[in-house]
Amino acid sequence: MKQSRLFGKTRKDSPKGEMSINAQLLIKAGFIKKEFAGVYDYLPLGLNVINKIVAIIRKHMNEIGGQELIMSSLQSPNYWTKTHRWEDSDVNIWFKTKLFNEKVIGLAWSHEEPMTKLVKENLNSYTDLPIYIYQFQRKFRNELRSKSGILRGREFMMKDLYSFNRTEKDLNQFYEKVKVAYFKIFDDVGIGNKTYFTFASGGAFTQYSHEFQTICPSGEDTIYLDEKLKIALNDEIYTPDIAKELKMNNDKLKKLKSIEVGNIFKLGTRYSKALDLYFINEKGEKEYVIMGSYGIGIGRLMGTVVEIHHDERGIIWPKSISPYNIHLIALDTQDSNVIRQADKLYETLNKNGFSVLYDDRKIQAGKKFYDSDLIGIPLRLVMSKRTGDKVELKLRTEQKSKLYSRSEILNKIKQEYKE
Amino acid sequence: MKQSRLFGKTRKDSPKGEMSINAQLLIKAGFIKKEFAGVYDYLPLGLNVINKIVAIIRKHMNEIGGQELIMSSLQSPNYWTKTHRWEDSDVNIWFKTKLFNEKVIGLAWSHEEPMTKLVKENLNSYTDLPIYIYQFQRKFRNELRSKSGILRGREFMMKDLYSFNRTEKDLNQFYEKVKVAYFKIFDDVGIGNKTYFTFASGGAFTQYSHEFQTICPSGEDTIYLDEKLKIALNDEIYTPDIAKELKMNNDKLKKLKSIEVGNIFKLGTRYSKALDLYFINEKGEKEYVIMGSYGIGIGRLMGTVVEIHHDERGIIWPKSISPYNIHLIALDTQDSNVIRQADKLYETLNKNGFSVLYDDRKIQAGKKFYDSDLIGIPLRLVMSKRTGDKVELKLRTEQKSKLYSRSEILNKIKQEYKE
Repeated sequence: MKQSRLFGKTRKDSPKGEMSINAQLLIKAGFIKKEFAGVYDYLPLGLNVINKIVAIIRKHMNEIGGQELIMSSLQSPNYWTKTHRWEDSDVNIWFKTKLFNEKVIGLAWSHEEPMTKLVKENLNSYTDLPIYIYQFQRKFRNELRSKSGILRGREFMMKDLYSFNRTEKDLNQFYEKVKVAYFKIFDDVGIGNKTYFTFASGGAFTQYSHEFQTICPSGEDTIYLDEKLKIALNDEIYTPDIAKELKMNNDKLKKLKSIEVGNIFKLGTRYSKALDLYFINEKGEKEYVIMGSYGIGIGRLMGTVVEIHHDERGIIWPKSISPYNIHLIALDTQDSNVIRQADKLYETLNKNGFSVLYDDRKIQAGKKFYDSDLIGIPLRLVMSKRTGDKVELKLRTEQKSKLYSRSEILNKIKQEYKE
Repeated sequence: MKQSRLFGKTRKDSPKGEMSINAQLLIKAGFIKKEFAGVYDYLPLGLNVINKIVAIIRKHMNEIGGQELIMSSLQSPNYWTKTHRWEDSDVNIWFKTKLFNEKVIGLAWSHEEPMTKLVKENLNSYTDLPIYIYQFQRKFRNELRSKSGILRGREFMMKDLYSFNRTEKDLNQFYEKVKVAYFKIFDDVGIGNKTYFTFASGGAFTQYSHEFQTICPSGEDTIYLDEKLKIALNDEIYTPDIAKELKMNNDKLKKLKSIEVGNIFKLGTRYSKALDLYFINEKGEKEYVIMGSYGIGIGRLMGTVVEIHHDERGIIWPKSISPYNIHLIALDTQDSNVIRQADKLYETLNKNGFSVLYDDRKIQAGKKFYDSDLIGIPLRLVMSKRTGDKVELKLRTEQKSKLYSRSEILNKIKQEYKE
């Protein structure tokens, strides 16, 4: 992509009214635009990152047997009244609206109810179980406050997976598989080493639910971390006794701010009973399906990566989810030889399967470097009169650059992207 | 995908309350589920088709210089009041809802206003023009009636492209490019030969807007078609005089039912004036940006393909958007030799890059053939005791099948998918 044509400008000034680092950097760098509090558009750079995160999550969901589908946002109250999650007094984040005939409908803030109904219509026999279905879908939540940029949206994309099993044992086995898949996802997007399995408040079915909490000073949550066991306890349920029960060492727990980047719940029969999702077992008896649900907010994950990976100059994308693999910068653009060489390298890189943002703009070098650091693509190449027939490579994480010949540079880049 | 694990059941009975062929077939075949009138979920088979349509459209949008982004559904009234499209008396299909502070917001039924504002924030100079940006986004429309299945949804995915040019001439040139791209899209999804460029009512800026209308008895629209000129006139604006003006032969016009599968509008300065989107030209004068908008409803396109391509037994997918390339059916599944052979072929096909729905279910042959015709994958392979070490190939469009040896079948399939 030639940067002279890229839609979305970088900015010098911090956007007004944005408190969070993630939104400040992402707006300044041209990844997102704020519509109003908690509601953001994703510009081409931002959508690139979203698409890479989605592809990573999809891979891991498919690997554990998930099947992707997509449900509606508009929700009839029918199912939700049965689970007592329709009235505003029960759930206070609904956005509600009306059909022409005055019937009130809602905007899905989660999908347990319609998923349960959908499975009921597609379950003929216990041999159809297990069923693991997921989607990437927008959720709408009428949050009272929304000051954390894309960490807490009123409208945001979520990956939500739902499991339907015959037995609690089957649920438990799948739950462990999801746990492993989630850690792979957080590793792949570059926050694995700061993310901890965390015990949080449970429901009717289990004592605890589980969250994946990423240590981050700007997080809205607080956890007590046992670094030796590599598990944490959400401070909502923390007591020394509970910590002890979980075999955590109370004396060495660290109290830390964190961001909840994922959560998994054993739902048991809470929804299947309310919505009559059952099967007939081999003995001819009716049994309710055992359910679980597993969420990851896509925008929140992207925002967390920015909160973790940035410096005073801008974002530092992990290679796996960078909007482009390489930022190629041509300086001295009035020099036709430089431009010819840079055009050629741009072509070669594209042909070799690398995605490249190519700064071909006729502006000052300083502005180009400023933008490059702000946007945060991990590999920067510079060509100029000074570099001659060589290419200067700098990693976003390092201060020093190094010159490579045209014949060396492709191998060097291939090396970097194999790590 | 093994059909024994595929989520989404076929049905014998037609769904209640569905008048349209598209929804009847798609529900029976397990592609979609109705939540309520005009609101549908897409099951794995349905999502596969949607993804293929999206990939085709994306390719053609990128080829004409489009850049993809994605905007929010939640809309503040700010911009919409300025273009007089906020009040229900002006636009009667808004779904509206409220924030916690009682502020009324709406669900986007189109995106001209926020797109115009977004460009205003990212336009520094006339050299930034032209700008072509598009998205695949859900639209919400509070339709009074919604009886046409996925042809007219209250919630549906749309590809909407917006163009921003310096001059009317530039707009006109791009408009022609979009026209060509749209015909490529309709060709690629298999309805090109029934789709006509159609003159429809214009706006303040132009005498006509243009639609792409696909001839179909179940369509909601009516057009007058000149088969020689290959253009049509929407009956909303048809008069013999207008037909004559467009050089159509009034004596030979055919009045036909049709489905509007795309529309393109020259918006001129309607939105840029209202929202102050301008640039300063070389003479230092202020000029308003010239806009156009270009839509294709994804669900409607999928529904139209079903309306056009089906028979009394089910859907007949064009190869380009079939949920799987091949439907492989194993009969006599109690015979371990048949299963072993079929498993092997399934693997070979997957390795060669073909997507395969593999009916490995232990059910009667009749039910398998019924489902296969209903689902409508264009190539069907059967292996059974009768076929021995050969494979039976049948095209969904043909009655006769033919036996091929294991060594021949892969080449035959490659041939079919090269056409």
